[in-house]
Amino acid sequence: MLNRLCLLRRSLTSTRTFHQTAFTLAFNSSKKKLRIPFSPTMSAISDSDILGRLSKLSISHPDVLKHEAVAGGDAWKGQLEKVGKGSVALTKTLLFKPKTAKSAAPTPVLVLAAESTQTPSGALGTLLNLKELRLASEDLIKEVLPSSSSKDDVSPLPLPSPIPSTLHVILDSLVANSTAEHALHLTSSSSTILLRGVDVKAYLESLVQGETGVRVVDFEELKSKAPEPVKKEAKKEPAAPVGTAKPQTVKKDDDVYEMAIQYKKEEDFPGWYTDVLIKGQMLDYYDISGCYILRPWSYTIWQTIQNWFDDEIKKLGVQDCYFPMFVSKARLEKEKDHIEGFAPEVAWVTKAGKSDLEEHIAIRPTSETVMYPYYAKWIQSHRDLPLKLNQWNSVVRWEFKNPQPFLRTREFLWQEGHTAFLYKSEAEQEVLDILDLYRRVYTDLLAVPVIPGKKSENEKFAGADYTTTVEGFISTTGRGIQGATSHHLGQNFSKMFDITVESPDSKQVDGKDSRVPVFQNSWGLSTRTLGVMVMVHGDDQGLVLPPRVAMQQVVIVPVGLSKSEGKNQTIYDECLKLERTLIAAGVRAKADLRDGYTPGWKFNDWEMRGVPLRLELGPRDIASNSTLAVRRFDNNKSSMPLADIATTVRTFLDDIQAEMLARATAKFDSHLINVTKWEDVVPTLDAKNVLVLPWCEGPKCEDEIKERSKSQANKGQQEDAKAPSAGAKSLCIPFGQERFGPFPDGEEQKCIQCGEKAKSWTMFGRSY
Amino acid sequence: MLNRLCLLRRSLTSTRTFHQTAFTLAFNSSKKKLRIPFSPTMSAISDSDILGRLSKLSISHPDVLKHEAVAGGDAWKGQLEKVGKGSVALTKTLLFKPKTAKSAAPTPVLVLAAESTQTPSGALGTLLNLKELRLASEDLIKEVLPSSSSKDDVSPLPLPSPIPSTLHVILDSLVANSTAEHALHLTSSSSTILLRGVDVKAYLESLVQGETGVRVVDFEELKSKAPEPVKKEAKKEPAAPVGTAKPQTVKKDDDVYEMAIQYKKEEDFPGWYTDVLIKGQMLDYYDISGCYILRPWSYTIWQTIQNWFDDEIKKLGVQDCYFPMFVSKARLEKEKDHIEGFAPEVAWVTKAGKSDLEEHIAIRPTSETVMYPYYAKWIQSHRDLPLKLNQWNSVVRWEFKNPQPFLRTREFLWQEGHTAFLYKSEAEQEVLDILDLYRRVYTDLLAVPVIPGKKSENEKFAGADYTTTVEGFISTTGRGIQGATSHHLGQNFSKMFDITVESPDSKQVDGKDSRVPVFQNSWGLSTRTLGVMVMVHGDDQGLVLPPRVAMQQVVIVPVGLSKSEGKNQTIYDECLKLERTLIAAGVRAKADLRDGYTPGWKFNDWEMRGVPLRLELGPRDIASNSTLAVRRFDNNKSSMPLADIATTVRTFLDDIQAEMLARATAKFDSHLINVTKWEDVVPTLDAKNVLVLPWCEGPKCEDEIKERSKSQANKGQQEDAKAPSAGAKSLCIPFGQERFGPFPDGEEQKCIQCGEKAKSWTMFGRSY
Repeated sequence: MLNRLCLLRRSLTSTRTFHQTAFTLAFNSSKKKLRIPFSPTMSAISDSDILGRLSKLSISHPDVLKHEAVAGGDAWKGQLEKVGKGSVALTKTLLFKPKTAKSAAPTPVLVLAAESTQTPSGALGTLLNLKELRLASEDLIKEVLPSSSSKDDVSPLPLPSPIPSTLHVILDSLVANSTAEHALHLTSSSSTILLRGVDVKAYLESLVQGETGVRVVDFEELKSKAPEPVKKEAKKEPAAPVGTAKPQTVKKDDDVYEMAIQYKKEEDFPGWYTDVLIKGQMLDYYDISGCYILRPWSYTIWQTIQNWFDDEIKKLGVQDCYFPMFVSKARLEKEKDHIEGFAPEVAWVTKAGKSDLEEHIAIRPTSETVMYPYYAKWIQSHRDLPLKLNQWNSVVRWEFKNPQPFLRTREFLWQEGHTAFLYKSEAEQEVLDILDLYRRVYTDLLAVPVIPGKKSENEKFAGADYTTTVEGFISTTGRGIQGATSHHLGQNFSKMFDITVESPDSKQVDGKDSRVPVFQNSWGLSTRTLGVMVMVHGDDQGLVLPPRVAMQQVVIVPVGLSKSEGKNQTIYDECLKLERTLIAAGVRAKADLRDGYTPGWKFNDWEMRGVPLRLELGPRDIASNSTLAVRRFDNNKSSMPLADIATTVRTFLDDIQAEMLARATAKFDSHLINVTKWEDVVPTLDAKNVLVLPWCEGPKCEDEIKERSKSQANKGQQEDAKAPSAGAKSLCIPFGQERFGPFPDGEEQKCIQCGEKAKSWTMFGRSY
Repeated sequence: MLNRLCLLRRSLTSTRTFHQTAFTLAFNSSKKKLRIPFSPTMSAISDSDILGRLSKLSISHPDVLKHEAVAGGDAWKGQLEKVGKGSVALTKTLLFKPKTAKSAAPTPVLVLAAESTQTPSGALGTLLNLKELRLASEDLIKEVLPSSSSKDDVSPLPLPSPIPSTLHVILDSLVANSTAEHALHLTSSSSTILLRGVDVKAYLESLVQGETGVRVVDFEELKSKAPEPVKKEAKKEPAAPVGTAKPQTVKKDDDVYEMAIQYKKEEDFPGWYTDVLIKGQMLDYYDISGCYILRPWSYTIWQTIQNWFDDEIKKLGVQDCYFPMFVSKARLEKEKDHIEGFAPEVAWVTKAGKSDLEEHIAIRPTSETVMYPYYAKWIQSHRDLPLKLNQWNSVVRWEFKNPQPFLRTREFLWQEGHTAFLYKSEAEQEVLDILDLYRRVYTDLLAVPVIPGKKSENEKFAGADYTTTVEGFISTTGRGIQGATSHHLGQNFSKMFDITVESPDSKQVDGKDSRVPVFQNSWGLSTRTLGVMVMVHGDDQGLVLPPRVAMQQVVIVPVGLSKSEGKNQTIYDECLKLERTLIAAGVRAKADLRDGYTPGWKFNDWEMRGVPLRLELGPRDIASNSTLAVRRFDNNKSSMPLADIATTVRTFLDDIQAEMLARATAKFDSHLINVTKWEDVVPTLDAKNVLVLPWCEGPKCEDEIKERSKSQANKGQQEDAKAPSAGAKSLCIPFGQERFGPFPDGEEQKCIQCGEKAKSWTMFGRSY
């Protein structure tokens, strides 16, 4: 199980520091110690450099204003009033430093916000998964912005290009989305330039490369995300506003709703992903970094997957069970090689109440060492085989990399199957049977195309003879993503844990022990599935859910409402009648009769949440005995007769399911590119494709391909598999080789890297 | 939620020490410190005292042998050979001391075993949940056995009567079940008495009172229960036997099977319970104390409960979700009163990998403080109500009392529902709706009768306005057991967590805040259900499972087999055909065609595992187109025609389900005794009944009833709710008061304790 982890470990050289609970933010005093500098190589940017950049971007602006040096907003406003610009919106630029490990370089956070915006460091830390954000020292300011000589001079304009990826750049949405002029300093507090908010955003974005990006943050919304520390005071005794009027304050009682997804999927994929998950009500942030709340909207999808998969494995004779979440240290560490991969991220319980435990107890990161000692006990005879157990549980891996909802979380839900067989052939058949179920979870339930295949030697699970996988693809980033893995463990664990039986086929010779170790498999599928589904189908309007798994498949919205209540009752009644009809036919339908919301607001709301089909019902529809059906995934609208509506709706839902899969499959296919010449490798990768290479399957050769395929910009940098310039690793050796056609050179085909004989078309790519 | 815990806390004054992982056994060196003596009040028992006891028990024996003092088996054997008794089975008596807290009295373990039996202290410690068992010092030996002057003199015969409950007495099953003579010392190693094994058992049992009992242990089986440390060596290089031949050695390859439950339910209920769970394959022990493995046989029952209950609550509009298992310290401790009950048993994660976490993180003991901050965030308007969330998860409570499978475990599975409403009346209705679902889980699924009612003020959940409960009954011990609880929390938590909405009914006056806190419920049902089911239905043959939840409802066993294989094939084919027919009709049936086992062995095996219906199929049955049906729960046998067998079997299963409930209900009812005179209270309790008392419902009065109803023997001792002499606490105020008839004194009825006006018939009893 858990290639994913082994792989992550290899790239665990991030400069990011250990992120802990977000709520420790404000209370620790900083310690004196030798500090690692931010970046020793940056040079100062001058005013004229900045003006040059603006002109290159065709950003027009009034002349730069020169005035007395100012410290703070009031002085600045005073200076601007002198030149008749007293009404211009002021900005503030803040540099925060999160707490970092002694040995790590700082990862500062630069915030450009409207003067009046509150920028709570606690909530910001939570958002970024950084710990104990504080205003940076003047020393650090000078490292980040060598042209600034004091904190009063700080401005984002003289940032270097490219901005180092270790600097987080945050832009207040009030500035980013504004076409009004905002005042910013150039390189010192004695000069001011007036730029439109949207131009500030464009300017900053021109300085960053790839996905690091400028993050636009709605601070009002951010504050509301951190329920505890802020809320009570805020409601009972509103804090005195720091600056001037707050134009977008969300008042709790107003039912004001953040209507739209704030990011474009193609422009800011990480921002988009988070926003869609939160606003689509799939999950919520939690006050412990790397842990998330699965709200019913996502958990129900997981339940659907559970129910389907559980039924299928029971048909294969697998039984469910539950092993404790705790593992004793001795057990966990019994198998050194196996645990080596997990050890750095094992969470340890060392106390109960006020008592220190004498032996520390681990929370399982996976269950091989938990379960297999009992397999040795339960499997006494070949008659006890096959033993096929599965459990639905949560496991904990205290990862220190930036967490990502569903994809990389410290606790996650999954199933883990662990099976034992007398014969290798039975075990190998099961590996494929399970893999095919995983494929069907993706294609049949989630409408996500995946390609089944075998992992390379480098990428297989350390304890396995071999690993099979279903590989998905996120077209927005051009990266592959591992969907689920099914491992054949051979006799590796059974020898280690002494899981042996007297073979019915062998005879005992001279009393000699003729026991044979069993053959084992393990296989796992996690809530990562949900993340892949969101990434593949979601769009700029929000989630797009496949009908088969959507908690709510159809929403019925009353339209054409009159101000006179009596008339509307008929519409409401028809909506409820339609809801009843559909529910009776097994369709998960809901009539949205909430008062106080316009139909447009409701359309938006349900689009954001990804409900597959919207039925609009108004007086004209009722008169014509029809309803307007709008499909979420392609916004296709059609009139649908109310007669036999249940059948029609079910057909629609089936069609949507099939078309979603077809669309995503076409996209994946169009990005699977056969490449046989090395010079095409990096350009093809950079065009966000998955490469299909003729390959010798050699581990050393794979390392070389990875190194050689890094984009020039990334050479010599610390490896980050997430960077758009990272090298390509093998995703899988697909089982259906024929889909890629014959090798151009037939039997003589050479490996694209080493020139040895190629064994297979293999998928290579950047990946999650 | 979780009255259970609050209650347990009150009696957490046990002298038992902190039991930790069982695998720390052998490695810690003991520390010098002031030792608390075992029991300072014991006086020496003489040889003639012992002979007097034997005669009182009518145990006959040859004359006592006097010889030279002996140290060890060989010397003893030598002395016995001199008097022609060299072939008598020797015994050994060992006294172990577990590690105990500084402030606790020792809880030693006395073992009487056959000389040849290996008595591994590690496995014994695991069994008893005691830590680091070591041979006791001479000092301790003299405290426990004042008549012994050295370790060579040790014998169980001069134990005091009654044996203090802090001494564990363990008897080797090889001795206990033997009718052969065994040699024991009297009070010194220079005298020997020969007693039959069964008489030794009877003698020891005469010294103990109540449930503490003498525990009979099969050491061979015990060793096999501790898979890791023993197994490998045992298999590869059998250790040299310590004494003489081991008559009952279980060889792994022989498919030797521990056929019977070793304890009688009525005689040794705790031993029986554990044995039935292990041999019935419901669970297995785990190497961390208080944690158990739920094997498919039990987990599937839990899944059946889950599926049924989840469907029902979804009909009520409840949605499932998942919150993280971790809670930050700040969150957990936000509400002091709430957490006070849980704090002593919270497990803390303080390390990840090799890093110490700066803030310790708790594993949830329950989720109020985890969830409610988000309720405050999600519930912005009355339109967001009701909010009804449920989660299926595991929680951890690091209890320091002796764990008990299903009933008191450190990690357990449950569901916890948390709901919020605008109106109190809605919330109160739900409390009862859920309670009725809990009732149905017990009666409809598990065939276990429960009585719904309200908890007294003393017994309600601390955070609740009131707690409702379904109360079960274990007739073997005469104790009540709480089945599940549904709490109305009122506005207690919503005020604390600021979960408020603008009421649609109230108008804002002069801008004054007219927000109202919501009304909340919480309700939970755990895997404790499985323990109750086993205790209620199981018998001396093993588990008895209700058909509705049994993983396997029917077993088909081929009988009348011939030695000639050809003839048997017909029978096997008929068995498989019958299996297919039943499965096709939705019956969970299995044909047991395992070779190498006799039909009798299979009968036993499936009886032990509690399969509700056995169908025997042999040549004569086939000839008469019928099968012999044997019902597990009452052993009722009948011939069943094979024509339309599926319908017949389904009817049988329904009948069994109904009759199991009826039988258990009749038993519960017959032990529910209305008592109106105080002098009847203790005798009725001692006869293993639940009291139904006219009661004033006053908290102080409840304490007085508890104190006053303790049996004389228990007065002044530390309270142990499990002791058969414990006082009675209130179980519930049943909702169906009319079933208990009118008060004898009608309106004038006085409370049985305080003489104030009685408000209700209330169930009082000893309880789990």
